[in-house]
Amino acid sequence: MTDPTPAHETHAHQTPTHWTLTLVCDDRPGIVHAVSGAVVAANGNITESQQFSSADTNTFFMRLQVMAPVDRAAFEQALAPVVERYDARVQLDVVGRPMRTLVLVSKAGHCLNDLLYRQRGGQLPIEVPLVLSNHPELAGLASFYSVPFEHRPVTDPASKQAMEQRILDAVDEHDIELVVLARYMQILSPELCAALQGRAVNIHHSFLPGFKGANPYRQAHARGVKLIGATAHFVTSDLDEGPIIEQNVVRVDHTKDPSELVSIGQDEESRTLTQAVRWIAEDRVLLDGARTIIFK
Amino acid sequence: MTDPTPAHETHAHQTPTHWTLTLVCDDRPGIVHAVSGAVVAANGNITESQQFSSADTNTFFMRLQVMAPVDRAAFEQALAPVVERYDARVQLDVVGRPMRTLVLVSKAGHCLNDLLYRQRGGQLPIEVPLVLSNHPELAGLASFYSVPFEHRPVTDPASKQAMEQRILDAVDEHDIELVVLARYMQILSPELCAALQGRAVNIHHSFLPGFKGANPYRQAHARGVKLIGATAHFVTSDLDEGPIIEQNVVRVDHTKDPSELVSIGQDEESRTLTQAVRWIAEDRVLLDGARTIIFK
Amino acid sequence: MTDPTPAHETHAHQTPTHWTLTLVCDDRPGIVHAVSGAVVAANGNITESQQFSSADTNTFFMRLQVMAPVDRAAFEQALAPVVERYDARVQLDVVGRPMRTLVLVSKAGHCLNDLLYRQRGGQLPIEVPLVLSNHPELAGLASFYSVPFEHRPVTDPASKQAMEQRILDAVDEHDIELVVLARYMQILSPELCAALQGRAVNIHHSFLPGFKGANPYRQAHARGVKLIGATAHFVTSDLDEGPIIEQNVVRVDHTKDPSELVSIGQDEESRTLTQAVRWIAEDRVLLDGARTIIFK
Amino acid sequence: MTDPTPAHETHAHQTPTHWTLTLVCDDRPGIVHAVSGAVVAANGNITESQQFSSADTNTFFMRLQVMAPVDRAAFEQALAPVVERYDARVQLDVVGRPMRTLVLVSKAGHCLNDLLYRQRGGQLPIEVPLVLSNHPELAGLASFYSVPFEHRPVTDPASKQAMEQRILDAVDEHDIELVVLARYMQILSPELCAALQGRAVNIHHSFLPGFKGANPYRQAHARGVKLIGATAHFVTSDLDEGPIIEQNVVRVDHTKDPSELVSIGQDEESRTLTQAVRWIAEDRVLLDGARTIIFK
Repeated sequence: MTDPTPAHETHAHQTPTHWTLTLVCDDRPGIVHAVSGAVVAANGNITESQQFSSADTNTFFMRLQVMAPVDRAAFEQALAPVVERYDARVQLDVVGRPMRTLVLVSKAGHCLNDLLYRQRGGQLPIEVPLVLSNHPELAGLASFYSVPFEHRPVTDPASKQAMEQRILDAVDEHDIELVVLARYMQILSPELCAALQGRAVNIHHSFLPGFKGANPYRQAHARGVKLIGATAHFVTSDLDEGPIIEQNVVRVDHTKDPSELVSIGQDEESRTLTQAVRWIAEDRVLLDGARTIIFK
Repeated sequence: MTDPTPAHETHAHQTPTHWTLTLVCDDRPGIVHAVSGAVVAANGNITESQQFSSADTNTFFMRLQVMAPVDRAAFEQALAPVVERYDARVQLDVVGRPMRTLVLVSKAGHCLNDLLYRQRGGQLPIEVPLVLSNHPELAGLASFYSVPFEHRPVTDPASKQAMEQRILDAVDEHDIELVVLARYMQILSPELCAALQGRAVNIHHSFLPGFKGANPYRQAHARGVKLIGATAHFVTSDLDEGPIIEQNVVRVDHTKDPSELVSIGQDEESRTLTQAVRWIAEDRVLLDGARTIIFK
Repeated sequence: MTDPTPAHETHAHQTPTHWTLTLVCDDRPGIVHAVSGAVVAANGNITESQQFSSADTNTFFMRLQVMAPVDRAAFEQALAPVVERYDARVQLDVVGRPMRTLVLVSKAGHCLNDLLYRQRGGQLPIEVPLVLSNHPELAGLASFYSVPFEHRPVTDPASKQAMEQRILDAVDEHDIELVVLARYMQILSPELCAALQGRAVNIHHSFLPGFKGANPYRQAHARGVKLIGATAHFVTSDLDEGPIIEQNVVRVDHTKDPSELVSIGQDEESRTLTQAVRWIAEDRVLLDGARTIIFK
Repeated sequence: MTDPTPAHETHAHQTPTHWTLTLVCDDRPGIVHAVSGAVVAANGNITESQQFSSADTNTFFMRLQVMAPVDRAAFEQALAPVVERYDARVQLDVVGRPMRTLVLVSKAGHCLNDLLYRQRGGQLPIEVPLVLSNHPELAGLASFYSVPFEHRPVTDPASKQAMEQRILDAVDEHDIELVVLARYMQILSPELCAALQGRAVNIHHSFLPGFKGANPYRQAHARGVKLIGATAHFVTSDLDEGPIIEQNVVRVDHTKDPSELVSIGQDEESRTLTQAVRWIAEDRVLLDGARTIIFK
């Protein structure tokens, strides 16, 4: 993801900035000591720290919050020896900085509504320069939240390809860091999935057992499931099989008809997607192969 | 299920019995009035009542608890006009009567332990005249709870068929009403499934998404699932696809290795199976096609 | 509570009305039969039914939903023999009719906001003809939802007595059925509590263990509680000791400071109070001495 | 707590040991760097790390798991400069080492059963050299799990004092690190509480609101509580007011009679106590004044 430097970081200054630092590298001894040494060199104080060593991939993951009276360049300079020695991927972000987010929708507005409502209430550090949709229905909702909305019908391969190009252009144009498929009912092409790898998140319903095919809520009703839920995951070329970020379920019983299951399921979709977006926007989600490390 | 008359019901008497009455019939107006009239005729008092009209199958389901100073014959006589007029299936049971239960196990003892512990503690109205196993490991656990344990190795088609015959014989011999597969790691033959239709319950792990094939916990770990759970269901010829009785999940995260997922999953299996058995033993589970109606 | 007849009930008609019927009487045999007979006499069909016999007070409680093509007078006539024979208190209401609700507030707006937000979204069957407050702060919130707001300072015994008289007058003036203390930070006089008996609901925070005195969140933080919650209850002369309607808790840990505990606690207060008001407005809450029967 | 060195630590060796390191000191900059430096000096690799700065007491808490090919003496030597510079309290333990645990019981076996069942299943790293009881009832349960059981009647001040002396002797005799009051229905003397400070854990029921005096479940029923639960806490001289380790609640409703509330409450007690014991045995519980820091 791009990570634009806030204007106030361009000069050295004495007011401390609250930084988020994430680091991923091969797991070797001494990393924590090296990183904490860099923090000391930056006159920083660690206010939050989490780490995980993956036995599956022999990878080390770390997320720190550091209060430090330095600008980005100075902090990066302090970290440079660590990056070099451990061949580490390091990201610096400022706590609370809104992540630039493109939202894709179709007709159902429950996820978009929850994202924008919480964004406006200060509970979700994102900014949304654009909502793109293959249907016009949600223009009013976006307008209520003063978010630009663009409608592009997708009816055939040509218009589908045009939409995908528009998505890529919008990502460039608006410096998008995260693409959210908020019930966007189009299958993305493998090329688009590859282009958005690791920075696109999708939400879909979840049942125990899983149901394939059309109208899963009707199938779930027919089987009398007692739990229905939702899964938020990164987009990969296999649309619903990417690394899982968050899952929730809620208890239902025999008195619920399929339309009530849909309504209950939508609530789970909204809160699960919003939670996943929050964690991503707070730099709490790191990838370990097909798994996610979530530093809550 | 067989429903043997307790000895104390064999004569008319004045001490009231606490009856469970379940009734299933086509949904038509007036049923509640007719049933409650039969209760009045039996000098009964309704202490608990639940009903449900299934729009899917146009079927009416009812469960009553009735305190009535009558024996089984007298109560059945009072109900006879309802049965005839509404073509209703009616079952009478005595509240708290232990259901005669055969438990099948293999090596893992967590489900058996939970069933026997709660049975002994008075929290689970079952009696267990026999535990049957294809492995010897759980003999000590059964012995601690003074429950007869029988070990029959299953190593080839012939021994498998012998075990299945033994199960059917044990059902007859001990007037078994419920067969519980408490992590019995053998696939039942279609014939045995058919013979036990509606009176055998199984437990298996559940994941979002579902995983097929061997070592599902390892697969779940590889996908980084955030929820793992268990499903208790009636046995049908498709072993894990019968009507669902109860489901639970618990939250996990990236720090859990496959063996920890197994341990967490076993806890869910135990409590989910015990809950399902309790509801069945209390006559709270009715079948509506492939769905269950649970009158909690 | 008053229960004004909707205009469309004033003539006999054939379009069925969806009625709620609650009945409370001494527990004796035959009640269900008698009530279901009255439903049959009104050409009604029972769509939902719940009952409970309290062993503590020997009282029978029932709540039915009945689809019946009759007006109020005709239904009451059909029920008259039951009322007489069992000395029953019977209430008829129409499903979905908004309950006339007076809301009392002080400075904190989280509960008022949740009530009005859900009322407007169609999830809470109340109408609010007036919000009364001893502080002016929430006038804007009420205005946003187009609800009349009246500010009356309470600073001494005389102004307190004036406020209490104003509450009673408002109840009369607006045919109020329910008074909601939505973080109204005034202790009601015993006389007012008595006057509002059974039709006023209060919300307060809850902790394990309970904390007496000022600043309970600070005390809870100091003890390191792991759960904080809220209790909604009917108002009695002992302000926080009335019959409990609903309780919720949420898990917290050592990282939360007192102000975060307050914020988490307020969320619990909002949802707990709204849930309690919903159940009352749907006629699902009945009193059994100091306990509530909730027919969810 | 005593922390006996495992036999295999007595020589230098190359096979790495998985250490738990907990550290508590005044909060100052540079601690993480200093500790990680000591880990590097011990050729260690940090596999798990958690930290917390308490604003209340200006105290810094840290828990590490470190894989290091050193024995205890060598690790302590590497840590010595940190201990000196920061005046830190440091504890070293070996991951998975069973904590030596004395269990005190009376008649109710639900907590003891859960502890021993999970200990035997490998889910709870404790060893139990002795169960002490003032009643004989649980001898069979202890015997099933091959745990020595000692019965000492407590009927008067003299026998009570003898029991308390026996507890202290048993702690010495068996190098006990943790004393678990698993529904031990005796109030400990202030002297015994002081002697066991920080290494004894108790479980008791919890209600909203709290109830004082005899038969709290009956009081809870009378008030119609909607939640019942349990609290595990360290023992202090005020028996039920020590630092809280874990709390759970479960939802109940008006249909539960007092004996059902007891049964539900016992389940919460078992799982809450076992969870607290697990965290203590894994060195995850640190004291911050009257609060606990739990590094889950």
